Amino acid sequence: MIVEAKLEKLGLWLPEPIKPPAGVVLPFAMVHVKGKRGIIAGHGPQNPDGTVAGPFGKVGAEVSVEQAYMAARSTALSMLANIKRELGDLDRVASWVRVFGMVNSAPEFDRHPSVINGFSDLILELYGPERGRHARSAIGVAALPFRICVEVEAEVEIE
Amino acid sequence: MIVEAKLEKLGLWLPEPIKPPAGVVLPFAMVHVKGKRGIIAGHGPQNPDGTVAGPFGKVGAEVSVEQAYMAARSTALSMLANIKRELGDLDRVASWVRVFGMVNSAPEFDRHPSVINGFSDLILELYGPERGRHARSAIGVAALPFRICVEVEAEVEIE
Amino acid sequence: MIVEAKLEKLGLWLPEPIKPPAGVVLPFAMVHVKGKRGIIAGHGPQNPDGTVAGPFGKVGAEVSVEQAYMAARSTALSMLANIKRELGDLDRVASWVRVFGMVNSAPEFDRHPSVINGFSDLILELYGPERGRHARSAIGVAALPFRICVEVEAEVEIE
Repeated sequence: MIVEAKLEKLGLWLPEPIKPPAGVVLPFAMVHVKGKRGIIAGHGPQNPDGTVAGPFGKVGAEVSVEQAYMAARSTALSMLANIKRELGDLDRVASWVRVFGMVNSAPEFDRHPSVINGFSDLILELYGPERGRHARSAIGVAALPFRICVEVEAEVEIE
Repeated sequence: MIVEAKLEKLGLWLPEPIKPPAGVVLPFAMVHVKGKRGIIAGHGPQNPDGTVAGPFGKVGAEVSVEQAYMAARSTALSMLANIKRELGDLDRVASWVRVFGMVNSAPEFDRHPSVINGFSDLILELYGPERGRHARSAIGVAALPFRICVEVEAEVEIE
Repeated sequence: MIVEAKLEKLGLWLPEPIKPPAGVVLPFAMVHVKGKRGIIAGHGPQNPDGTVAGPFGKVGAEVSVEQAYMAARSTALSMLANIKRELGDLDRVASWVRVFGMVNSAPEFDRHPSVINGFSDLILELYGPERGRHARSAIGVAALPFRICVEVEAEVEIE
């Protein structure tokens, strides 16, 4: 329960399971365990009750880098919430492996790493430099579901 | 041959190997087996003869959600055709692992999950809820090869 | 040192570690080894001194296919440089597994495979058809960090 104790100390909460907009069906696993591999679906920022969280729209146009950084940090919490639901304990993540960060991007926006750092910084703070270490891509996509400003897919190694 | 029998019952066909437009070279493996892992290249919808299939263009502009859902379903068939060519039998897929769904997206389109469900729904119908279970991302990309409206990359576990 | 001898014969150099623009922090591993898997972060073209290399902007608008092909080839060199730094010897790559190629794409551009071939062709030339074989996706993204025209993420198997 070390990681959860750190979350509490930071005053952070894990959101409820995602409540997608009416009529949207999500027929897949948010965290899919295959042996020691934890394959993690694309996650976005959520409110405490599980609803999809803003700010909505394109980073570099409607959404600032600072807002998007916080949305990426919030996305890490959505992901940790599902990891906890699937594994029971966040400490069962032996290490992070891969982070694929997608920014809903205005055509000329070019600071994607500074946005996805909101995700990486929290993971490194919670898991430390060795277990938190991950390979990463940060790119600008044309659009994201529900107009969220950030989506992150990942893989972890499980103890 | 259980999965293939299901395909036949559904009246579905597997297309011929991809015939890209003239002058296009694709110097990579459509399905790349490494031990128990089957790494699957990005696939798109194909006609029975292997040519690239429409509708072409941006979902949310030239292409409707319903058309794109069918293109995603057709993309699953392109992928299954290559899995069969590589493994000999679709039943050798022990389970699905990861699905990465990319929608050629108008800037304001936000229903990507409803499009990629065309892929997931067919996989779940063919392989059932346990073997068909997968982690998934669904995003909007700026453009796709040959102006196809959907592309899906995946990974499976092989028996 | 077989792969490095080939590089030398081709007159190709491996760039210095990336020097991102001022103020940009990249808190992640460029190559992350987990057992036999080498998970490789998104890379772009670099100059010999490690600075981010052009041409910058959208392929299909400011950047031609031929220029982008060379940028994808250059991206392979950036990646090989980091693999060498992490593994000590490029021959320790037993085989290539997955290549995910992202083109900073004008909305109507549709020749992404011809761009990412710059990456694949060099890998196949250096590692041969068996060890160099990889599954691949090639897509068009809305924007990339620092306005680079190509970014490639990958996975290799390590001896």
